[in-house]
Amino acid sequence: VSFSVTILGSSSAVPTSERFPSAHLVQAGERFFLIDCGEGTQIQLRRFKIRFGKINHILISHTHGDHVFGLFGLISTLSLLNRTTDLHIYAHPKLKEILDGHLKFFHDAGLPFNIIYHFLNSKKASVIYEDDQISVTAVSLKHRIASKGFIFREKPKPLNVRKEMIGYHQISLKDILKIKNGEDFISKEGKLIPNAQLTRPPFKPRAYAYCSDTAYSEKLIPHLQEIDLLYHEATYGNELAHRAKETAHSTAKQAAEIARKAGVQKLIIGHFSARYKNIEPLLEEAREIFPDTMPANDGMVFEIEKKRLENSGA
Amino acid sequence: VSFSVTILGSSSAVPTSERFPSAHLVQAGERFFLIDCGEGTQIQLRRFKIRFGKINHILISHTHGDHVFGLFGLISTLSLLNRTTDLHIYAHPKLKEILDGHLKFFHDAGLPFNIIYHFLNSKKASVIYEDDQISVTAVSLKHRIASKGFIFREKPKPLNVRKEMIGYHQISLKDILKIKNGEDFISKEGKLIPNAQLTRPPFKPRAYAYCSDTAYSEKLIPHLQEIDLLYHEATYGNELAHRAKETAHSTAKQAAEIARKAGVQKLIIGHFSARYKNIEPLLEEAREIFPDTMPANDGMVFEIEKKRLENSGA
Repeated sequence: VSFSVTILGSSSAVPTSERFPSAHLVQAGERFFLIDCGEGTQIQLRRFKIRFGKINHILISHTHGDHVFGLFGLISTLSLLNRTTDLHIYAHPKLKEILDGHLKFFHDAGLPFNIIYHFLNSKKASVIYEDDQISVTAVSLKHRIASKGFIFREKPKPLNVRKEMIGYHQISLKDILKIKNGEDFISKEGKLIPNAQLTRPPFKPRAYAYCSDTAYSEKLIPHLQEIDLLYHEATYGNELAHRAKETAHSTAKQAAEIARKAGVQKLIIGHFSARYKNIEPLLEEAREIFPDTMPANDGMVFEIEKKRLENSGA
Repeated sequence: VSFSVTILGSSSAVPTSERFPSAHLVQAGERFFLIDCGEGTQIQLRRFKIRFGKINHILISHTHGDHVFGLFGLISTLSLLNRTTDLHIYAHPKLKEILDGHLKFFHDAGLPFNIIYHFLNSKKASVIYEDDQISVTAVSLKHRIASKGFIFREKPKPLNVRKEMIGYHQISLKDILKIKNGEDFISKEGKLIPNAQLTRPPFKPRAYAYCSDTAYSEKLIPHLQEIDLLYHEATYGNELAHRAKETAHSTAKQAAEIARKAGVQKLIIGHFSARYKNIEPLLEEAREIFPDTMPANDGMVFEIEKKRLENSGA
């Protein structure tokens, strides 16, 4: 099962010829989540050959234009493509206001699909999406207006029962389920077979966190435990730390500090100010503190690899 | 003096990875006019290295999303760039409604520049802009909602007085102005020098017409006399003539018919439906009727060359 993040846009408010405004696509198995939808997102989806119809969930971190201006065009295109599947939008209630005005003006005959709003109005971290594979939690960031980070976590998986053991001990389906949940097994001969001999550890649940836009906030750290991949905005370099503070954004150094303190596996920095034609200095700044840092460039795909948990019993 | 058109977007409602939605930049000398502003226009301006600050006039043909969704991002960026110069927007009054809602939401602290609206609510052809170099006329197109074409014409120029004649006859400044306007000259010796001996014909006033979105309409033809370059939408090929009619768009053949009947110098077709991965068939269809047809591709620049009028007296 794939768990990946595609960078559709990596600029901050002002796009450049190389970087579109914020948008990420998260693929978790067969589910596609769009996080933020800056101007031109639909063009990037085309360019990177991602089928529009697969996206059923759009998560909007906050209602600044560079995170939402692509929503209008995307919705128009979905309408022209005769989408009929519900579209779920997770956002601050204010987004509905502006979107309602738009739909009334540009789609007065209505859309061929329903938009189902899920309002992000809790200050506390809360699960906003859950299925049998993954959960998504929204956490409060620190910005000029209400802004949410999104944490995608695969659900813990049961133990894998070794196939050869099922045959050898002629284990019934009912017993297999028990063994998956950690029980030992008593064979026909009455012998106790410890669970560790019957199973392999499952894959470790993978996790991705999107934190943009946000100022440096250590309050995020408890939410970022056991994260494989963290995207943290780094609008500025440390030389503009004062500007980052004024505008409630982060520096590359601060993004790296959060990654290091939370102990994540890998950091992606992005949401770069258009003033940085070359983002190498930002990358170096982050890597001094957190070596496993990558820059977000439009079109990059970050695949989170599966890793087996260690077998406590083996 | 340059008179050119840059194609920023050439797709119809649904953009593709190759074609952004509608937007053209007209440069007439030092003046830059943006016609329509589809999603991603600001990204195309960056890509084609056109300075945002130079654009003081934005003309919106009609209020369908694919012609206006880029306005919100462009205005945000102009604000972030601390523009202070007035921005003139020529559009249907309804555009102000939607823009006002936007500005209130995304720019509640106001913009650092003024937006000056010029409403296109006359059904008759009318001059909407005029300076000492050019005039712009809006003409009614035939579409599902009110839609305007825009005709840019250079003003007729006076005759060029030959420098060598000024020296030879010792012509005063006052007399030069008279000769520019066609008068003959009487030399100190009392000899009449015919105007044609003293002057060269001026350059022919150049003209560009933008007609999109529109169904086939012969009512346009009288407005398209003496046009060097005509952009006429060609959303479909002739095989979809019924679809063109239903949606009030044109086929490539119809665009060429208009060009031929109006006797323009050159035709550009664009606003292609996303279904045409290859637009060669549309081009061939148009060229059968009007050979001097070019396709609009994003990034193309069409320069209208200067031509001298013929000297009636020489």
